[in-house]
Amino acid sequence: MIVNYTDLIEKVKRTTVPKPLSITLSGHAAGEPFDKHVYAKIKKQFPKNTFRQYEYLNDLFSKSPDTIGFNARQELFNSPTVLFLLSRGKNATDKWSIENPFEEKQNDTADILVVKDNFYELIDIKTRNISKSAQPPNIISAYKLAQLCAKMIDNKEFDNFTINYFEINWELEKDKLVCQDAHFGCLFKANPADLYINWAAAMQIQFHVCDLDQTFKGERKKWAKEYLKHFVIQAKKRSDDMIKKFVKPFEKYLN
Amino acid sequence: MIVNYTDLIEKVKRTTVPKPLSITLSGHAAGEPFDKHVYAKIKKQFPKNTFRQYEYLNDLFSKSPDTIGFNARQELFNSPTVLFLLSRGKNATDKWSIENPFEEKQNDTADILVVKDNFYELIDIKTRNISKSAQPPNIISAYKLAQLCAKMIDNKEFDNFTINYFEINWELEKDKLVCQDAHFGCLFKANPADLYINWAAAMQIQFHVCDLDQTFKGERKKWAKEYLKHFVIQAKKRSDDMIKKFVKPFEKYLN
Repeated sequence: MIVNYTDLIEKVKRTTVPKPLSITLSGHAAGEPFDKHVYAKIKKQFPKNTFRQYEYLNDLFSKSPDTIGFNARQELFNSPTVLFLLSRGKNATDKWSIENPFEEKQNDTADILVVKDNFYELIDIKTRNISKSAQPPNIISAYKLAQLCAKMIDNKEFDNFTINYFEINWELEKDKLVCQDAHFGCLFKANPADLYINWAAAMQIQFHVCDLDQTFKGERKKWAKEYLKHFVIQAKKRSDDMIKKFVKPFEKYLN
Repeated sequence: MIVNYTDLIEKVKRTTVPKPLSITLSGHAAGEPFDKHVYAKIKKQFPKNTFRQYEYLNDLFSKSPDTIGFNARQELFNSPTVLFLLSRGKNATDKWSIENPFEEKQNDTADILVVKDNFYELIDIKTRNISKSAQPPNIISAYKLAQLCAKMIDNKEFDNFTINYFEINWELEKDKLVCQDAHFGCLFKANPADLYINWAAAMQIQFHVCDLDQTFKGERKKWAKEYLKHFVIQAKKRSDDMIKKFVKPFEKYLN
């Protein structure tokens, strides 16, 4: 890992951002300024290595202006797994140019990307109003993570990237949002068999970062295999549950 | 049907609402003031019969102040089907009092309710920025609709309510949102077998109201049975598709 999160937690605690206008404080959007805040702090420490995901893609493509089109630009990534995590779709990649760069996209995998010595550290910021109880947020698509694990195994790429989550707990004080605490968790240190998949909510894995166990000790290859096992078991279970809940109770009406 | 929608469409065309501050115009929230607009126009025509869903519940419970608690208050609805569509949860209903009435809730079934001679007309307003292309919006949970159809059949209640959708197409002109057109559709005039269920998006039925076919000619009982058949077929298909997409491709990694 590149970033020192213990240090980062201390740096963001008690920092403030102005209360946004006309946005309900329940929504996820309210805490968004903290995301930019964390980005600035990491960028200060690693100015040449810190990017927003779209910035990294613009940087990568700008360095090879003669490489045109989706397939050729895919080759610019030196890792199929990182390619899978960071790249945009065919149409957007075909249309990219220095005059028509990528902009921020809400469902990009990472909020922040720190790249050093061919190691990619993806960081996703989760902001949380601790005055209200809320469902655990969407973390990543369980299916996308299964595809990622398959790619890691297919390409034997286990050590060139990580995915980290950073939770900002904020509270409204007068006209400011104040960061009261922060938490860090590494996806690949969580026990994969314990990850909760919300099938109805676009198959999203959901957790509060502060609740994420960090006790997994095995190698990444083991993590990938254990996650795939968990995903397949859960998908089978959901498939069976759908028959029990959505088919059986209604069959008597189909005469 | 109580409301004359052809008339309503003419009344809302070219009406405007102020552009909301600090909200992206892509989001659903931007068009929300039009919802209040339509409500005001219907209320003007049927002042004693037009409610927001929470207003109706507050009105119903206020008329029987001696009826206390969830079970007793459930009895105030004279229709199990309407009860299923409109009522709030046990905890909220238990806690209700004149001093602690219901407030608007985002996932209430209806935006507007017109009640006359024991007939309930539920109206849901869908606002749409026609300058942008957008996915069809969430209409109603396919599972909730299946439960509703089962209740209609169980209680032989086919003619005491309807569910209508009203789409407002708006565009930004200077600092105003202008209604360019409006569309009306009745759920129970659509062919139930054609309704699209997005299983990944919380099992929501999705359509643009302007695209909703209105060619179903049968009675409501037939509609309910045909919808249940469609729902069961689709649930089985989704259950099978989950095995094909989320289990089979990953089995080779589980040695």
